[in-house]
Amino acid sequence: MAFPRSALPTPALIVDRAALERNIAAMAAFAEAQGIALRPHAKTHKSADIALRQIAAGAVGICCAKLAEAEAQADAGVANIHLTSPVVAPPAIDRLAALNRRITLSVVVDHPENVRALGSGAGGLTVFVDVDPGSHRTGVTSAAAAVALAQAIAATGTLRLGGVQYYCGSHQHIHSLAERRAAIVERTEYLDTVLAELRGAGFDVPIVTGGGTGTFAIDASLGVFTELQVGSYVFLDREYTDCELAGPRFEPALFVDATVVSANTPGMVTIDSGLKAFATDAGVPVVLAGAPRASRYAFTGDEHGALFGDNLPQLGGRVTLMPPHCDPTVNLYDRFWVLEGDTIVGDWPVTARGCSS
Amino acid sequence: MAFPRSALPTPALIVDRAALERNIAAMAAFAEAQGIALRPHAKTHKSADIALRQIAAGAVGICCAKLAEAEAQADAGVANIHLTSPVVAPPAIDRLAALNRRITLSVVVDHPENVRALGSGAGGLTVFVDVDPGSHRTGVTSAAAAVALAQAIAATGTLRLGGVQYYCGSHQHIHSLAERRAAIVERTEYLDTVLAELRGAGFDVPIVTGGGTGTFAIDASLGVFTELQVGSYVFLDREYTDCELAGPRFEPALFVDATVVSANTPGMVTIDSGLKAFATDAGVPVVLAGAPRASRYAFTGDEHGALFGDNLPQLGGRVTLMPPHCDPTVNLYDRFWVLEGDTIVGDWPVTARGCSS
Repeated sequence: MAFPRSALPTPALIVDRAALERNIAAMAAFAEAQGIALRPHAKTHKSADIALRQIAAGAVGICCAKLAEAEAQADAGVANIHLTSPVVAPPAIDRLAALNRRITLSVVVDHPENVRALGSGAGGLTVFVDVDPGSHRTGVTSAAAAVALAQAIAATGTLRLGGVQYYCGSHQHIHSLAERRAAIVERTEYLDTVLAELRGAGFDVPIVTGGGTGTFAIDASLGVFTELQVGSYVFLDREYTDCELAGPRFEPALFVDATVVSANTPGMVTIDSGLKAFATDAGVPVVLAGAPRASRYAFTGDEHGALFGDNLPQLGGRVTLMPPHCDPTVNLYDRFWVLEGDTIVGDWPVTARGCSS
Repeated sequence: MAFPRSALPTPALIVDRAALERNIAAMAAFAEAQGIALRPHAKTHKSADIALRQIAAGAVGICCAKLAEAEAQADAGVANIHLTSPVVAPPAIDRLAALNRRITLSVVVDHPENVRALGSGAGGLTVFVDVDPGSHRTGVTSAAAAVALAQAIAATGTLRLGGVQYYCGSHQHIHSLAERRAAIVERTEYLDTVLAELRGAGFDVPIVTGGGTGTFAIDASLGVFTELQVGSYVFLDREYTDCELAGPRFEPALFVDATVVSANTPGMVTIDSGLKAFATDAGVPVVLAGAPRASRYAFTGDEHGALFGDNLPQLGGRVTLMPPHCDPTVNLYDRFWVLEGDTIVGDWPVTARGCSS
């Protein structure tokens, strides 16, 4: 496959292969230099092609958010997966047990009932105690609860304690690096008390996994995590380019190309990319090429967006935008078009698109 | 296929077949009684199964927002499609011409350059003059521009003028019925002036197509439209149940079932349905069953949402929610599970999922 980028039907999800590979290499080099394991979160890209590149660059495996995502990645050849959300429904536990027979698998737990269900339905599985950093999404909410859960895991006689997961999700996007660092230092002190109680109660905690693209450099410097779950660094997005990031530099590698389909009003044009082309949870995309960078985007419907500004492109003109939030944007598309220079050289399926169950 | 709803992996997109069929029948009966044609917008459901049911109930065909959506519906057996957005890129015009050889097709135009391109690249096609009601998304912005565009269509010698499209998108969700009616009456007076100028200039305008679930009863009462493009009535959603609708009653027919995957904090639980399970452009889903209706939902991440309130379900409990905005929610899923009573009796593919280009 080789054709000009300008021939793509739009909206088109495009990954710049060279930029992606530089991002993968930069994070791998950082982790190696820090002596910390890398287990990138694949909920960002949902792509086996990218997961296998991350593993080839040194990652120990990947994270998936959902069981169906892990099943799709396993079907595509990924052999080491950690599930970052609890799996509780009985039919899902059966699927988890089946997947555990095929690949190296682990899953978080945060409730003794779930531990008992996994102990009888998915014996042999490795589980991680999920510790809530205060966001109350998932995880045990105290050191005492972590110890009780570890005791429940031991009591099953069939589950293995792999370690602890701790993900400060809401901290990833604190704009100021100094404020983000202060918040993470405080939250890591709490994590240290949980780990101390677990170890004091006789539990080995070989792996402490967590972190994200907003905090990984801080996490690594604090020396408590043994494994980083960074996801968005492979692509960046507008949310993260808005933040002051520490550590290695990453570059935007994920784009949506759009076409001007209406141009009848001075100072604005309509492009063919709206609510079904971009995630809408994190503001608006930004214009990178094809129109002045100062052009402002607004969602105007399922299939349309408006660009406002001066010197806008004419009818049929092409525009390149950076998504506001990469993960749920990727989940809208069936494929990545792979870009080298100005040439599309291939396409990669979004392996686990829509696999939320 | 027949298994209990409770066995579905979650998040699961569910269509209640009986409610859907009542909605389809109610709109068909309304249109027949009013002597107005029905051309439901299939961007809502993207499903050939539902489109063919709408046509069997009397619809003249369907609308699609995008060419790829129309191609997918045609592949699945839908033979009469109107495209509600301009198609401007040269490769897309080639595809449009190919589709026009397979099915009865029409497309909107709003620019003389596009008319010339279609005239030479897609001869034989039926085109509609898209008239901007003031939202400036697409459409010509004056009666004079409408006449000039009709003249450009005639000048091609190869395109046929099918009529006029007029879609008051932003008016659909005006909460108060009286305010919505007043706004539509005013906007329809403007449409009447455009139609008068077109007819005065010698153009036949056999079809005037437009309207939506928020305005169709008003549109029908004003007697200017000949065809209704209603979409959301098949499912309803939280946005439309928030509005005072006129005309026949519709009922919610689209649901997402979710599972409680964490329950460690008093007054809240975490369910397995977040940014990748619901559209996020129109507020939050509402709880219909499995938890008190007063429970409040909040998005807490790609794969999770929180429910806040009293008497919440326990770990593993199942909850049924109504999506905030049906169209982009459906676009997240590969299939509808078809519900009869409490039994899943089949699944329908989301035929045109992700077909935005």
